[in-house]
Amino acid sequence: MANFADRLMSAIKQKNSRVVVGLDPHLQLMPPHLLEDAYLEHGEGARAEACAITRFNEAIIEAIAEDVVAVKPQVAFYEQLGSWGFVALEKTLAMAREAGLIVIVDGKRNDIGSTAAAYAEAYLGDGPLAGDALTVNPYLGEDGLNPFIDRCRGTDKGLFVLLRTSNPCAGDLQDLPVQGRPLYLHLADLINAWSLGTEGERGYRSVGVVVGATYAEEARQLRRQLPNLPFLVPGYGHQGATAQDVVSCFNSDGAGAIINSSRGIIFAYRKRYGPKEFARAARDAVKEMKGDINTALGRCD
Amino acid sequence: MANFADRLMSAIKQKNSRVVVGLDPHLQLMPPHLLEDAYLEHGEGARAEACAITRFNEAIIEAIAEDVVAVKPQVAFYEQLGSWGFVALEKTLAMAREAGLIVIVDGKRNDIGSTAAAYAEAYLGDGPLAGDALTVNPYLGEDGLNPFIDRCRGTDKGLFVLLRTSNPCAGDLQDLPVQGRPLYLHLADLINAWSLGTEGERGYRSVGVVVGATYAEEARQLRRQLPNLPFLVPGYGHQGATAQDVVSCFNSDGAGAIINSSRGIIFAYRKRYGPKEFARAARDAVKEMKGDINTALGRCD
Repeated sequence: MANFADRLMSAIKQKNSRVVVGLDPHLQLMPPHLLEDAYLEHGEGARAEACAITRFNEAIIEAIAEDVVAVKPQVAFYEQLGSWGFVALEKTLAMAREAGLIVIVDGKRNDIGSTAAAYAEAYLGDGPLAGDALTVNPYLGEDGLNPFIDRCRGTDKGLFVLLRTSNPCAGDLQDLPVQGRPLYLHLADLINAWSLGTEGERGYRSVGVVVGATYAEEARQLRRQLPNLPFLVPGYGHQGATAQDVVSCFNSDGAGAIINSSRGIIFAYRKRYGPKEFARAARDAVKEMKGDINTALGRCD
Repeated sequence: MANFADRLMSAIKQKNSRVVVGLDPHLQLMPPHLLEDAYLEHGEGARAEACAITRFNEAIIEAIAEDVVAVKPQVAFYEQLGSWGFVALEKTLAMAREAGLIVIVDGKRNDIGSTAAAYAEAYLGDGPLAGDALTVNPYLGEDGLNPFIDRCRGTDKGLFVLLRTSNPCAGDLQDLPVQGRPLYLHLADLINAWSLGTEGERGYRSVGVVVGATYAEEARQLRRQLPNLPFLVPGYGHQGATAQDVVSCFNSDGAGAIINSSRGIIFAYRKRYGPKEFARAARDAVKEMKGDINTALGRCD
C-alpha cells in the first residue's frame, strides 16, 4: 500500500501539475439549468439540490481530471443539505476515485478521544465518506490529533493540519506572541514532532499542513522550518494570491505543495462561455492555473 | 423569538436541572438487542445501524427529558455511518425538539467566509440538521466565528466556542504563554468582545464557551473573567470530574453553566439493570447526576 505522501508526489510528477480543485458547490453560483432540471425531476428541496450537485461535480471531475492531482470537497456545502447532501458527497467521492484523483476531504474536523477516532473512521476509514486525506484543526492539542495521525502510519491515508490559514483574521490566535515568535511557528514545531513516522520513500510525510497563499512571507519561513511536510495551500485566485505568491510554498524540487482553487475553477463559466459550457470553462481555467504555477516555478513541460 | 441564553436559563430554572446529556451512540456500547433487531430487519450495514441508533435515542430522550435541559448529539458518531447516519441525526434532532429539549449540536465546526456561513446555515438555520446551538472551534479567528455569531443576534440560536477543553493535552496550544498569561485567557477576552450584542434579558449572552470540568481552577478563573457567558462543561463522569469539580463553573445565582455527561448516562445500563432496561438505567443515572450537582450547589428542590 503506497504511502499518501508518495502517492501525492508521484501524481505531481506524473501530471506535472500542482493543482487541487475545491469542489465547493455554492447553490447560488451553480449553472441555473442544472438546478432547474433537478427541481423538475424531484420537486424543490434538498433532494433535487443534491442531485444537481452530483451532476455538476460529475462533469467538473471529468473536465479537470487530467490536469489536477486532487480534488477537495468542502463538506460544509454538502452538509447544509442534510442527509441528501451526504448522498451527493458519497457519490462525488466515488466519482473522483474512479477518475484516479486523490481526494482531500476538507472538513476541518477536530475532537478528542473516541470522538476524534469516530471522525477518523468516517473520513480516513473505508466507509462511504472516506477520502485519501482530511483537513483537521489543531486547537485541542496532540491527543486530539493522534487518532487522525495514527491512521496515516503504514496506510495510504494522509492529513493536513490547519497551521497558517488564508483569512484576514488568521492572526487573531495564530500570530499571538509565544516566547518571542508567533504561535503558528511554535505549532509548526509541534506538528513536525507529532508527524514523525509517516515518511514515505520520497522524503515527504503523510501529515502535512494548511498554509495560506495570502501570507507569502510566512509561507517561506514555514517551508524552511518544515521541509518534509506537504503544504496544502488555499488562497489562490478568488482570495487574491497569484502564482508568484505561491512559489515560496514549494521546495527546490518543485514539489512539496499543492495549490487549491475552488470557485475560480468550478464557476469559471461566469467569466467565460456561460452556464451551458461550465465544464469547458473549468477545463480551460484549470489548464491556465496549472500553466501559471509551472511557469512561476520554471517547470513548464 | 426568545433569545437562546434566556431559553437556556429559563429551562435551568424551570427544571432545576443543569444537566446536558451527550447523545454519542458508540456502536460497540449499544444494547446488543437493538443492533440485532435492526440487522434482522435491514441486513448488516450502515442503514441498520442508523436505525438502531434512532430507536436507542428515541427511548433515551423519552427517559431523560424531564430531568435535563438539553441534549448534545456528537456529530462524529452519526457521520461515521455516512448519509444514513445523518438520517438518524435528523430524526434525533426532531425527537428532541418534540420532547421540548434544547439541542446543542456538537460539531466543533470551523471555517472561513462563505464556508463558515454554510456550516452556520446547516446547524443554525432552518434545515433538517438545525439545532438550537452549535459548538465551534476558534483557531481561525474572528472572521471564522462571525458567520456563526451573526446567527445568534436577534434570533433564538446559540453558540459554544471551544475555550479550555477537558482532554489531557488541552494545554499544548491553550496553555502557551502569551504576554504573561496562558493563551486561553487571552482568547477568553477576545470571545468576550466578539460576543457583544447577543445578550438576553437575564444577563447572559447567546454565545458561550466550552470549559472542561477536569480543570477546576482554570474554570474558576474563567467564570470570573466571563460572568455573562454560558459555560458548556464536558468532563463530568467518564472523564473523571465530580459534582464538586463543576461548582466553580457556576455563578452565584446557580446558573450560567450546563454540565454534560454522555456515556455515563446513555450507557448506564452497563453498570445497572442490563441492556433490556437501558432507558430506565439512563433515567435513574440522570436523576442522580442532577441531584449530585444540585446538592453540591446547595440548590436541591
